[in-house]
Amino acid sequence: MPELRKDPVVGRWVIISTERSRRPTNFTPAPETRGSDFCPFCPGNEDKTPPEVHAVRANGGPPNSPGWSVRVVPNKFPALQIEGSLDRRGEGLYDRMNGVGAHEVVIEGPRHDQNLADLPIEHIRDVLAAYRERVVDLHRDRRFRYVLIFKNHGALAGATLEHAHTQLIATPIIPKILQEELEGARRYFELKERCVFCDIVQQETAEDNGRRVVMTTDRFVAIEPFAPRFPFETWILPRRHDAAYQTTTDPDECLDLAHILKDTLQRLNRALDRPPYNFVIHTSPVSDGDLEYYHWHLEIMPKLTRVAGFEIGSGFYINPTPPEDAAQYLREIAVEA
Amino acid sequence: MPELRKDPVVGRWVIISTERSRRPTNFTPAPETRGSDFCPFCPGNEDKTPPEVHAVRANGGPPNSPGWSVRVVPNKFPALQIEGSLDRRGEGLYDRMNGVGAHEVVIEGPRHDQNLADLPIEHIRDVLAAYRERVVDLHRDRRFRYVLIFKNHGALAGATLEHAHTQLIATPIIPKILQEELEGARRYFELKERCVFCDIVQQETAEDNGRRVVMTTDRFVAIEPFAPRFPFETWILPRRHDAAYQTTTDPDECLDLAHILKDTLQRLNRALDRPPYNFVIHTSPVSDGDLEYYHWHLEIMPKLTRVAGFEIGSGFYINPTPPEDAAQYLREIAVEA
Repeated sequence: MPELRKDPVVGRWVIISTERSRRPTNFTPAPETRGSDFCPFCPGNEDKTPPEVHAVRANGGPPNSPGWSVRVVPNKFPALQIEGSLDRRGEGLYDRMNGVGAHEVVIEGPRHDQNLADLPIEHIRDVLAAYRERVVDLHRDRRFRYVLIFKNHGALAGATLEHAHTQLIATPIIPKILQEELEGARRYFELKERCVFCDIVQQETAEDNGRRVVMTTDRFVAIEPFAPRFPFETWILPRRHDAAYQTTTDPDECLDLAHILKDTLQRLNRALDRPPYNFVIHTSPVSDGDLEYYHWHLEIMPKLTRVAGFEIGSGFYINPTPPEDAAQYLREIAVEA
Repeated sequence: MPELRKDPVVGRWVIISTERSRRPTNFTPAPETRGSDFCPFCPGNEDKTPPEVHAVRANGGPPNSPGWSVRVVPNKFPALQIEGSLDRRGEGLYDRMNGVGAHEVVIEGPRHDQNLADLPIEHIRDVLAAYRERVVDLHRDRRFRYVLIFKNHGALAGATLEHAHTQLIATPIIPKILQEELEGARRYFELKERCVFCDIVQQETAEDNGRRVVMTTDRFVAIEPFAPRFPFETWILPRRHDAAYQTTTDPDECLDLAHILKDTLQRLNRALDRPPYNFVIHTSPVSDGDLEYYHWHLEIMPKLTRVAGFEIGSGFYINPTPPEDAAQYLREIAVEA
């Protein structure tokens, strides 16, 4: 059973993944992304994954058979285990609980060699809708406090399978950076009675500004944030105040989000020669729903520089690319309509 | 002039290093560590670095000439600039200031191919004393609030030069993770009237425990922390309560620290086949001196797994090696006396 443990000084919870326990000799060399010789995510191999929990089949067909365009399955090697109770307990000054949670994989399309950015907009919309479906379902489990949605694209960004996919992890704790963001946004709201992300959107898209804007649509903006940790770090935010990702259900809004995500990823791909990247959806915790001080958004982090342990160990990032320069490069990229 | 910018939500300062500005095409492929064909840190090349600010020359000799065993120089390509005032200013809801700070390099020994762990204990003591000398000197500059001491060993851990060295960055801000640690330790002290790190040392070294202890000396302990982010993450803490690294001046204590650092690094080297690693010294801020709630320590992070952007982007770490297992492996390693 994996375990969740809390650092007694800074309060950060980590997963100690005993099921995946590795001896020293198992670390070198780092595994490469598995190639296309065998892929459990390809159509025809549906029996090689745990049974699906959601799928899009425009032409119908039984579960766990080919014919799907988007398919969600539990992770075969989950970081957390779905069964059991939390069983919170102490050990002197330390806190721990059972590593209970859900770990799912959204297989973004049937074609092994097609990446998210290259899918048609309507297909990306279905992928984004699959995230939403799963979040709504996982929120029903009273043990969970957060559903983390993230994508590792490329081996250097941590992907272990090549076939395009996104991961969802439902956890009984709120991940540290999300907790900090919630607290920071609440403090700002207490001071200003405004959402800090609404203020960011307003300032960035003001007529006399726009230096950090990558692109805008009717309902979303893509910007390089003012104080990015990484070169070409890019955020997509809804213009309308909305705390929770899963409440984005308006059909036009969903299509608009698919559009700006595709367009932004394509710009990054062209500017940076198809870089490895991660994205994480930042959204409100399970029970908090419609917070007036929080604003969901998506953060894309291309993996261009080596993040030294020093940066992770100190939280102090050195970014060699001013966001104004990055935004200009990305604006100037020509993308398909 | 580099710039310090603050994220308006979570309050994290980042360096936007305009001097090192990189265009998109400069990112791929990642540069390898430069080899030994030319090394500015080797004896005889003293004129290839900025003039030294500290050196150990047992047999005397003029500054910036060979004959040194430890040498400290300003970084030729500093992340922050030593001249100028902070000039704090706003831009709408954002905060920024000039990237003023010191960035120095401690060249740990004259031999190009000798690593810190392989130096004699007395030599390591001199390296550790050089950190202390520089911290004391940099604390005199009233613009600085923190001096960060860190080592990147190996290209995968972010080292760009092969010759063994440590870096010091003096900053006008307190790096985020240090700030969090200071706040967490203060909260614990308010509750318990004890230092949390003293409690950790006591609990880990209790007679009926010891499962996470790597080794102990008279004055220090090396442990795998209870909730480590990374496999084989290892902390060295003084047994005696002491907030600031630079106040470790007792000769026996300094030699003891050199001993436990060498021994711990050798154990990691043997267990993990000389892994790339980082270490960061966590110590109290410039003006705070002798805090009763904080306790300096050194955190070593071997670079064994790929840290996905997701982990950086969420603060949620999955560690495949329980610290009890890691401590056992490291205890069982035979090292030279």
